[in-house]
Amino acid sequence: MPVSISVVNQKGGVGKTTTAVNLAACLAAAGHPTLLVDADPQGNATSGVGVIPQDLEFTIYDALLEQAALEETILPTFITGLSLIPANIDLSGIEIALMDRPDRLERMKKLLAAINDRFEFILIDSPPSLSLLALNVLAAAERVIVPVQCEYYALEGLTTLLQTFERVRETVNPNLDILGILMTMYDKRTNLAQQVVAEVERVFPKQVFTTVIPRSVKLSEAPSFGKPIIYYDFNSKGSEAYIGLCQEVLERVKETRAGQGAGRPVERFDESPLGERSPRDGAAGDAERLAAGDPAGGDPGQP
Amino acid sequence: MPVSISVVNQKGGVGKTTTAVNLAACLAAAGHPTLLVDADPQGNATSGVGVIPQDLEFTIYDALLEQAALEETILPTFITGLSLIPANIDLSGIEIALMDRPDRLERMKKLLAAINDRFEFILIDSPPSLSLLALNVLAAAERVIVPVQCEYYALEGLTTLLQTFERVRETVNPNLDILGILMTMYDKRTNLAQQVVAEVERVFPKQVFTTVIPRSVKLSEAPSFGKPIIYYDFNSKGSEAYIGLCQEVLERVKETRAGQGAGRPVERFDESPLGERSPRDGAAGDAERLAAGDPAGGDPGQP
Repeated sequence: MPVSISVVNQKGGVGKTTTAVNLAACLAAAGHPTLLVDADPQGNATSGVGVIPQDLEFTIYDALLEQAALEETILPTFITGLSLIPANIDLSGIEIALMDRPDRLERMKKLLAAINDRFEFILIDSPPSLSLLALNVLAAAERVIVPVQCEYYALEGLTTLLQTFERVRETVNPNLDILGILMTMYDKRTNLAQQVVAEVERVFPKQVFTTVIPRSVKLSEAPSFGKPIIYYDFNSKGSEAYIGLCQEVLERVKETRAGQGAGRPVERFDESPLGERSPRDGAAGDAERLAAGDPAGGDPGQP
Repeated sequence: MPVSISVVNQKGGVGKTTTAVNLAACLAAAGHPTLLVDADPQGNATSGVGVIPQDLEFTIYDALLEQAALEETILPTFITGLSLIPANIDLSGIEIALMDRPDRLERMKKLLAAINDRFEFILIDSPPSLSLLALNVLAAAERVIVPVQCEYYALEGLTTLLQTFERVRETVNPNLDILGILMTMYDKRTNLAQQVVAEVERVFPKQVFTTVIPRSVKLSEAPSFGKPIIYYDFNSKGSEAYIGLCQEVLERVKETRAGQGAGRPVERFDESPLGERSPRDGAAGDAERLAAGDPAGGDPGQP
């Protein structure tokens, strides 16, 4: 079974899509075959890896409603080892399509269960809401990353979010586990950012990732070029941060899987340890192929 | 019965909140007591009229779940004739709270039905989704304004939206009527904007409002000062546009009410006709009171 990680926060603009796209790209570049699932009707994770949301024959909408075979909805990307189930605005209709169905909370879970071992990781981007679609994401994934913006009212909404996790655990997904809280848009020049990080660490001492994502022009520019940051500007602070996050994620997944003694053997994660083949190496390798005009899976495209 | 108008589009960033806030302010300034209902967990309509979403005792969440009396949730604003039912991030929990209730689609409808004749208009801002919350808004209001951004893929999502209107009409709200499609963020310097307007007018010849909302720095700045545009910069293009929209809305509501022969007498709308007391007069009057440091209902505040 692949490790499934959702990126969830009902607040918009906290860095969910940036995190899903860049973590997925880093995992793939580090040698772990990864599937990025776009579960947000805005389709920004889709365009973020160079696929144009408006031009698609099949999307996650069709997969969730079993209107297309799963394999038909999985697209290659220009990044070696990274595939995509894309989304576009059609997905906004899923709420109505599912509303009266008894299995309405478990469509995504069923979808993910059908995804086989050719992927080691599944990363799911989610909508800025706690709608039926967002609940489907929480019902489906083993682990959650919660991005939190280093801003006033950073903790706003977190109580509701944690209550939602609890409710999901009690009903459709008893294994739901917070992999970590990720502080985003950190501006080291402001006292506010430092205070916010300190406060969130005080409230959630064990959950906050050591890696902090900086506020960065490069990170905001990359999506309009349809590229994860490690392909847009490998030497940027944003790139460095997501590579760091990738390492932390690999470590935490390894620890928790070992702790639970469940799932597939921990050894699988050691096959391509970061010590031997770091995200830098992987990304650089892919970046070189990219520069040489030979990206795997076709053109990056311009969203 | 007040005239209820929702502002709906599942796409984010098309100008829903800007339209709800500014149309509500113009209607109030033109002498029509108006209630602005914030039905978006982002709370931007709330902060847009100078109320800080994070500091509230009661919000629409409490009203929808009948945890507070309706009157407790209605706040005055600094604008004469404009009241507010505010929202904040708590509202994101409404989806789960309602999910298993048989009346889940009609909570907002019930809420609005309890609002009495002290208001002539109810304007409802909605979330960028077709979630249960958005469907509640559609189930509750007689009329919809659909803002459409003058951009590539302007018509994207409109098919899904219109199908949703149809489904709502067939089930919980047979009277649902499109009051108009509003073209927003129009940049007259680009050919694209003109082409988009022409295309949308071709597809929806009767629905598109004559008034077009320009792309404007003033319109984007006003919310951070907690003020509708007519109070932030009365002489701006954005201000002029929303005053124009207000007049069109009053005319269309009058026509359709007359055509249906239903609802309260058409004459009510003539009591303060725009010819005698234009939005400009009303707004200017309020703006003067504001400048004199005597806004109705307390300080504008800074969100």
